[in-house]
Amino acid sequence: MPGESDFIEWIRSRQSGLPHLEVGIGDDLAATRWKDGALLLAGVDQILDGVHFDSQIHLPRLIGQKAMNRNLSDCAAMGCEPVFALASVALPRGCGIEFARELFLGASEAGEKFGCSIIGGDTGSWDGELAISISIIGRCDGWKPVTRAGARVGDTIFVTGALGGSILGRHMTFEPRVEIGIELARSGVVTSMIDLSDGLSRDLPRICLASGVGAVIEANRVPVHPDAHELSKRDSTPPLEHALHDGEDYELLFTAGPGAFDDRFARIGRIIAGADVSIDDNGSARPLLPLGWEHPL
Amino acid sequence: MPGESDFIEWIRSRQSGLPHLEVGIGDDLAATRWKDGALLLAGVDQILDGVHFDSQIHLPRLIGQKAMNRNLSDCAAMGCEPVFALASVALPRGCGIEFARELFLGASEAGEKFGCSIIGGDTGSWDGELAISISIIGRCDGWKPVTRAGARVGDTIFVTGALGGSILGRHMTFEPRVEIGIELARSGVVTSMIDLSDGLSRDLPRICLASGVGAVIEANRVPVHPDAHELSKRDSTPPLEHALHDGEDYELLFTAGPGAFDDRFARIGRIIAGADVSIDDNGSARPLLPLGWEHPL
Repeated sequence: MPGESDFIEWIRSRQSGLPHLEVGIGDDLAATRWKDGALLLAGVDQILDGVHFDSQIHLPRLIGQKAMNRNLSDCAAMGCEPVFALASVALPRGCGIEFARELFLGASEAGEKFGCSIIGGDTGSWDGELAISISIIGRCDGWKPVTRAGARVGDTIFVTGALGGSILGRHMTFEPRVEIGIELARSGVVTSMIDLSDGLSRDLPRICLASGVGAVIEANRVPVHPDAHELSKRDSTPPLEHALHDGEDYELLFTAGPGAFDDRFARIGRIIAGADVSIDDNGSARPLLPLGWEHPL
Repeated sequence: MPGESDFIEWIRSRQSGLPHLEVGIGDDLAATRWKDGALLLAGVDQILDGVHFDSQIHLPRLIGQKAMNRNLSDCAAMGCEPVFALASVALPRGCGIEFARELFLGASEAGEKFGCSIIGGDTGSWDGELAISISIIGRCDGWKPVTRAGARVGDTIFVTGALGGSILGRHMTFEPRVEIGIELARSGVVTSMIDLSDGLSRDLPRICLASGVGAVIEANRVPVHPDAHELSKRDSTPPLEHALHDGEDYELLFTAGPGAFDDRFARIGRIIAGADVSIDDNGSARPLLPLGWEHPL
């Protein structure tokens, strides 16, 4: 019966020709020569069964893909080039090597699309549920990453795509905006950026808090995804509310000075002085408060 | 009631002064300038409740400490300097913010001992058990890391400390051999190295496989830990068997050419041609086979 070492050997056999690695997968750590003076970026993101996916419904390849794509979306949000990833997987005992392989392939293929290889991993089986943690290492070589902290009063607020209703399926299948994120960072005119993982009403305040500014969103300029309309038919919540609060859109929310980008991206609002975040709905403004509640620890 | 964002804010407030970070914790990714031409090493290791620790018995600070120390031990095994870590934690719902803080402090303090800061993290709560994944980034700046693949016929096999019986407590409290590992790598005479996490009888064959060699261990030269003797009294298994098979010693096993290191480290055997790994017990040799069995997936 195939065990963990068979799985690791299978992974190793797939990665033997990986370029740039002085020590490949299968030793205690992997090793690579870093390009002189390039900025190194790093972060981690985990997905958990019953929270970010449902292993009873979603195919393992799609689960692995989501795990990687969330990390790639973090790279997009900083405008850096993803380079390497490290993956740890806690497998429910008895899930089988084929399941593990599919998870790996999903993550690996999602990374390779952007030249980002998995260079290290740790697999364990336990009596618990499926948990996947991926760390990503990115680089900015000749340009600056974009943080959440640079928005200035008078900046326009942009978003790269339509929002809402991702729970209907897009939360598993989204495409991380890696190329756009890098392009925006290299443009030099973007002042702050974040990826919309928790919803506009939660993520925009993060930019405002980090930048020490407020914001006004214009309701009729927010691009509402067809999925938000579809979901609205089912739950009678207005589509706009889904677009504002749903989360897991993985579009980029960013700010730039007046005149930038014309109409290439949706201009959904502006940065103002103060700390308030509000939404202007045909002339009547109200605070843009996150819906739902945060899990207590 | 404190929630996840309070926890993240608490972590951020502790890390505001972290040196060398161009973007600190709390953005989508952290960013640091990498020293020109230095070799970057990276790996990941997770610990799971019921497998690597027991949350009913072990204090959260100790659990966090073990999670970090296993990664530091991987750095030791490569002979690299640990630099940064990224941590993801899947918390059982309702465990409380104090529990989460203790986990973080355990991991953080263990890292700081070796100048290794946690620069990024992800916290989530779920209906599952506690799982912690830590990724580590290390560096070799002016020397070469030591892999598993360089052992040569005629090399002596060394170990940095006594083995066996770690389940009595040392598996939670061990000190990773970071300084020794770096010293050994910088010496330039060490040909291969690994940290003993799965036991001599499993980890020595990994060096042999990677290096294309065999090995003979001399039974009477293996340093047996007092814990192995203590455990032997309880289970009637000979202390030597515990030293050979128990695992989680986190001592370094390494090879070097004849004449190196005199008696500073225990010389427990030699590298031979072929692929066999055996143990010589007062003149009678037998194969050194891993005890127990591997979990099927």
